[in-house]
Amino acid sequence: MKSLQTLKTRLIEIDDVNSAASLLRWDQTTYMPPGGAAARGRHLATLSRLAHERFVEAETGRLLDAAAQETASLPFDSDEASLVRVTRRAWDQAVKIPGSLISEVQEHTAETYQAWTVAKPRNDFASVRPLLERTLDLSRRMADCFPGYDHIADPLIDVSDYGMKAATVKALFAELRSKLVPIVRAITSRPVADDSCVRQHAPEAQQLAFGLEVIRRYGFDFERGRQDKTHHPFMTKFSLGDVRITTRVREDEITDALFSTLHECGHALYELGIDPAHEGTPLATGTSSGVHESQSRLWENLVGRSRGFWEHFYPLLQKTFPTQLANVSLDTLYRAINRVERSLIRTDADEVTYNLHVMLRFDLELDLLEGKIAVKDLARIWRERFEADFGIAVPDDTRGVLQDVHWYGGTIGGAFQGYTLGNILSAQFFATAVRANPGIPADIQRGEFGVLHGWLRENIYRHGAKFTAPELIERVTGSPLTLEPYLDYLWGKYQPLYDLREEERAAGVR
Amino acid sequence: MKSLQTLKTRLIEIDDVNSAASLLRWDQTTYMPPGGAAARGRHLATLSRLAHERFVEAETGRLLDAAAQETASLPFDSDEASLVRVTRRAWDQAVKIPGSLISEVQEHTAETYQAWTVAKPRNDFASVRPLLERTLDLSRRMADCFPGYDHIADPLIDVSDYGMKAATVKALFAELRSKLVPIVRAITSRPVADDSCVRQHAPEAQQLAFGLEVIRRYGFDFERGRQDKTHHPFMTKFSLGDVRITTRVREDEITDALFSTLHECGHALYELGIDPAHEGTPLATGTSSGVHESQSRLWENLVGRSRGFWEHFYPLLQKTFPTQLANVSLDTLYRAINRVERSLIRTDADEVTYNLHVMLRFDLELDLLEGKIAVKDLARIWRERFEADFGIAVPDDTRGVLQDVHWYGGTIGGAFQGYTLGNILSAQFFATAVRANPGIPADIQRGEFGVLHGWLRENIYRHGAKFTAPELIERVTGSPLTLEPYLDYLWGKYQPLYDLREEERAAGVR
Repeated sequence: MKSLQTLKTRLIEIDDVNSAASLLRWDQTTYMPPGGAAARGRHLATLSRLAHERFVEAETGRLLDAAAQETASLPFDSDEASLVRVTRRAWDQAVKIPGSLISEVQEHTAETYQAWTVAKPRNDFASVRPLLERTLDLSRRMADCFPGYDHIADPLIDVSDYGMKAATVKALFAELRSKLVPIVRAITSRPVADDSCVRQHAPEAQQLAFGLEVIRRYGFDFERGRQDKTHHPFMTKFSLGDVRITTRVREDEITDALFSTLHECGHALYELGIDPAHEGTPLATGTSSGVHESQSRLWENLVGRSRGFWEHFYPLLQKTFPTQLANVSLDTLYRAINRVERSLIRTDADEVTYNLHVMLRFDLELDLLEGKIAVKDLARIWRERFEADFGIAVPDDTRGVLQDVHWYGGTIGGAFQGYTLGNILSAQFFATAVRANPGIPADIQRGEFGVLHGWLRENIYRHGAKFTAPELIERVTGSPLTLEPYLDYLWGKYQPLYDLREEERAAGVR
Repeated sequence: MKSLQTLKTRLIEIDDVNSAASLLRWDQTTYMPPGGAAARGRHLATLSRLAHERFVEAETGRLLDAAAQETASLPFDSDEASLVRVTRRAWDQAVKIPGSLISEVQEHTAETYQAWTVAKPRNDFASVRPLLERTLDLSRRMADCFPGYDHIADPLIDVSDYGMKAATVKALFAELRSKLVPIVRAITSRPVADDSCVRQHAPEAQQLAFGLEVIRRYGFDFERGRQDKTHHPFMTKFSLGDVRITTRVREDEITDALFSTLHECGHALYELGIDPAHEGTPLATGTSSGVHESQSRLWENLVGRSRGFWEHFYPLLQKTFPTQLANVSLDTLYRAINRVERSLIRTDADEVTYNLHVMLRFDLELDLLEGKIAVKDLARIWRERFEADFGIAVPDDTRGVLQDVHWYGGTIGGAFQGYTLGNILSAQFFATAVRANPGIPADIQRGEFGVLHGWLRENIYRHGAKFTAPELIERVTGSPLTLEPYLDYLWGKYQPLYDLREEERAAGVR
């Protein structure tokens, strides 16, 4: 397998450059002094270009052809055949995009992101509007590098959720919406849960210490990772031996840092669980945005916001914040961290209404790409749509069309569907894990996560990007992506919390 | 100047890759979890190779030729002519070393460094001996890429102190030695100063806060830099807007972190003071190891260990450590931080004996390269030589031949002379600054450093690598490197501290 070996060496070298770029980005948001910004943008642009140039060289294609022959008789799920298959797919995509367009997008994105960081706090959509118009134009041009698509968003969705089509996502989201809205309505007809017990002053150091203790118990390996602080938490990886997460801390909320830590830890456990044999190759990454998000949401919500989890960890939280929580019951805490309400900000939204935020953005992305709506009207349309969906007025663009970085830091299209796909999948995977290991809920009540973590590692994590999301889901759960486990999970959790009636779940959506 | 512009773009791109490598190294010693080590070595090797390959391409030479023509009529010290001249010199050097040898050295160095970190605490020279033998061989092969040298160490010295010859350094060191040894003898014939006042428990946070306050007053710009903790302090730069230092903290000594911080701050002020027009080019760096070290020693010793400095800062130190220092007089503190004694460890040595440590290493480097001594005898020869020079026995190799990283993390040859050149130059530059601005000592007593910093920036820092060290020294001080200011400084400081007699200074060396 000489060609495969040469190919692998080449891929690892490209990964070396990409990993350095990842460290530059991590540093940019954690420790870099302000004066480093200008040069850092240049460093990143150069490394990204070098890695891309090397990857799209014809030699990569030649090696792929030769390696395909060498591995032709190997099983589909062998490491070798999978590496060739997955790399070929990435190469076929990458060579279709001219290097000049990539540079153009990168430069434009850097400028737009910079403008957005100024415009957002100033509620100044007008200043980024022309930039966003160009983003839309560039996004369309990116999509047009892949002629023959069914929907113009399809090639953009392929980047993060390979194989999902706009039409499929649309249909799925419509169905989810029809089932979710009645639940939201039912819950919001009840009195809002009191969350004053978590909205208390909580010093940073204690918040961080508690979160670190929980993820240590989750199985986060501090020999192969660490946590630092940023404004916008994320997970990043420099190698399978160095996977880092970041968190933020607002001292006016006891669990603020915690859920961000648990979320990013979920992403990290996925990457840390990848088979070391894949190190440095395109297989050494999560397979899609949706599957990745399923893991962050699983560890944040299905585990971290469950009653069983808190039966174990609440005493420790009380010990960490004795003055704040001494007289707060477990029940009160559990209700507070699972409070459901229609609210303005996606990233602060609860499990139930969160998907409505995603759908709004997904629909607007499609409308923009299709030319049904124009960027110049986007702020107004956002407000109208939000009011229709949530029944609350958007007081300013800061908390409206300017709230999320995605459109100002990348392309329009493909950025949001992964969040809701992740929510759906988190429940589908978790249900499968519990079917295989019925003791998992009792484990969680004891603060033990080894069986769950082990099952996820064995069935999902170790494969990295070997299988596409649809292949993986079928393989792991025995069926394609399906809504039922997610809806059952939500109902099973929120029905008792809000004393919902069966007929409210069945109510149709007008 | 089309070729010059194209050359500059190319050089900046290479700098982008090198800067990324610097960040990888910084992270390696500050925040990287242990699991990241293996891949980090690979990332670094790839980036270094890519940068080297691109630099030595024939196209760089072609652009240099064309740019030389374009700038032929420009003054020697113009930015443009200097860029061509300095880049040409670096290119001529780089192309002479085969890429394969660079890779070989890099891989060997990584392995040797790793082995040294294990061998040093275990006092196990035998385990690194074969590796060091290969280091010596590789060092010779590096030197032999530059045939026609006077001494085999010359090409290795050129890497860090361009233009210095082994013969020149040897003569200079011999002279310095003959003047230093009588002073050391005189001082050590007096009772050893009592430094128990600084050898008290001092919590890390307060030590760091005090050091940061001092370097803020020195003029370290925290918008363009930061300080983190490492085992072995260093300064590094990712751009002229992002220059970082590291420090270490031992809590059993009040001023432990401080002097390390001041030292690295001196290096950083040099880099931060470089003209932004040089950003990303070979001019945007300090000109030599010796000149760089002159700045770290100037801010650490000539300023930071001076009586005037402490007249201003001692009240703040007492406020920082009130229980430890309430009853300690300024005089006692000043004597403690300037205690002179023959000791085992170079990095802990005082200003007077420090150079003897350097000379021992420099001499052994030459002997090894010349083949006068063999690596297999090195540990024994170190002990013998040390005892002869210092009059104290070396209790183990940990505190002997294994103490410094240099031979185990690079080549043998060229690594040490810069320290003593720096000591000598620090006094020569400082004396010139004070001649031009006689108010500087009084400024220091008031905790004001603007005039000194401004003079250094104007005369040294802003030029970056535009002038070689000999050119710069002549230009700044009006004479070549000279010992007198340094010896005068030492005598002026230590004569009153130890009540030395004139005839002791003049005493010859047996």
